[in-house]
Parts: sequence; C-alpha cells; structure tokens
Amino acid sequence: MTDTFTMTPIGHVECERTEPIDDDWGSIESNIHIDSDQFTADVLAGLTDFSHIDVVYYFDRVDEAKINLGARHPRNRPDWPLVGIFAQRAKARPNRIGVTTCELIGVDGLSICVRGLDAIDATPVLDIKPHVREFQPRRPVTQPDWIGELMANYW
Amino acid sequence: MTDTFTMTPIGHVECERTEPIDDDWGSIESNIHIDSDQFTADVLAGLTDFSHIDVVYYFDRVDEAKINLGARHPRNRPDWPLVGIFAQRAKARPNRIGVTTCELIGVDGLSICVRGLDAIDATPVLDIKPHVREFQPRRPVTQPDWIGELMANYW
Repeated sequence: MTDTFTMTPIGHVECERTEPIDDDWGSIESNIHIDSDQFTADVLAGLTDFSHIDVVYYFDRVDEAKINLGARHPRNRPDWPLVGIFAQRAKARPNRIGVTTCELIGVDGLSICVRGLDAIDATPVLDIKPHVREFQPRRPVTQPDWIGELMANYW
Repeated sequence: MTDTFTMTPIGHVECERTEPIDDDWGSIESNIHIDSDQFTADVLAGLTDFSHIDVVYYFDRVDEAKINLGARHPRNRPDWPLVGIFAQRAKARPNRIGVTTCELIGVDGLSICVRGLDAIDATPVLDIKPHVREFQPRRPVTQPDWIGELMANYW
C-alpha cells in the first residue's frame, strides 16, 4: 500500500501576504484564481449561495526536508506540550495539506474573493468545497488549553 | 503554473462499508491505520485531548475519466439546481480529495478509531488534523435549501 497520487493545482491564491507569518490572518482578503486552462466559470455555479467555503491548499514553500514526522512543541514553545504532528495544524506536515474555512465575499468569473484564508500569496489550491452546516461536528467540541492559547491572535 | 505534487498516503481506513453508498454514515465506526513504515506512535501524541479530528482522504475508487470539471445536478436530481463541482461536495471532483470532521473515539498505538467518517474501506488517508473550535466559521453560516435536503439522511 505504498501507492502515491499526483495532484494538480486547480488555482492559486493572490493576497498581500508573502511571508508565512503565524498570526493576524482574520482580516486578510484573498483572491483565489481558478485555472482557466482547466475550467470555465460554470465550475463555480451556485457557490455564492454559501456564506463560507472550505479551501484545501498546498504548503508549497515548506521545505520537504523540514517536514515533521513525529512530535514537537507547537510553535517551539516548551511551555506547551509535546504533541504529534497529526495532533496539531502546523504547516511542516506530511503531504503539506492545509484546510481552512473562509468567509466567501464574492465570485467574479473564475476568481473567488474570500476573507480569512491563512495561505500566503501564490499558494497552490487543490480543492474548493462549500462549507455545509451538516458537516460541522454533531456533538460538543472539546480541545486542550494550549490550542486556545495558540489561536488567541490567529485571526 | 502547471506544477504537480505527489502525495503519499499516511494510512488507510478500515470499516465495514465497502461500497460508496450515499447516506447513513453517522453510526459507522472506522479505524484509521497510520502507516507503520513511515511513522511511530508519537505522531499521534496528544490527539485524544481533542473530541474531533478533520480527516483528509483520497477518493481512490473514483474513475479519473468520470471526474466532473463543470456543473451537475447534485445526485443527478433535476429538481435541485445545476451547481459547479466546487459548489458541491460530490466525490467525482478534481484531485478527488475528501475532508470530513469525525468524532474521535480513541487511539491505540497507530490506530485511530472514529465515528462518522464517510470513506469506504481501504480509502487512503492523506492527513489528520485536530478539529479546532477557532477554525470554525466566525460568522453565521448560510447555505441553499438543496444541500439541507441532500444532507437529511447523510448521517
């Protein structure tokens, strides 16, 4: 079971942020430009009926040699616990996939304007899905304290 | 910008469902077996402090020739609108990526037991992320009526 899969970006992010800064993503507005060589605008038909979209993207600027295959202190903070890479959302992760729910501002042809996408300029986008209420957790969500502290200034 | 990326599964799903049935996923319990050739159990350290995980997986049984690159009626229901593939969560989509938030039941070594993962047996898993409350939408969610009807029996 060592098969691999090839992904082709469906588009790219355009935004003002060009460096991977940890915090203050909440007010960032980005345009996702869907690739016109692959798609026409009907691929986004009906998208604006949703208030939010889930964006799947690729952390292409993460050096493959720096991908964490074990555990680390989030943001290298020794006062936070040592947690596995699959128990945190850090970018230096196997397959380098990011998933973020963003507010949809509008669609213009093959461009999608969003607020709160935590991806830097030119990031490849792998998928766009409508955010669906029924896909949210159906039971109460609990999480450890450290992640709440980490997220305090994220948006 | 026609670069492609190679993904390697981090593990595979084991569950009782072997056919891609549309509905009744809510009570399905699955085990995600993380690949022991690539990882040791510290990659999951701290995961059980979270009640839910976001699972990124690959619809490997979808025929590449059947991927929708435009718009379709969800579930081929003509009474629902014609919407673009990026405005629905159907599996026959570019890059064939699925993302689902599941209830975490427990972790045993490199196996993760979850409830409500809508992926059939042997599905390759590309990433596991903890579900974090602050990553949920920060404004009210709105969506069209058809998706609520579609989701009525999904879980």
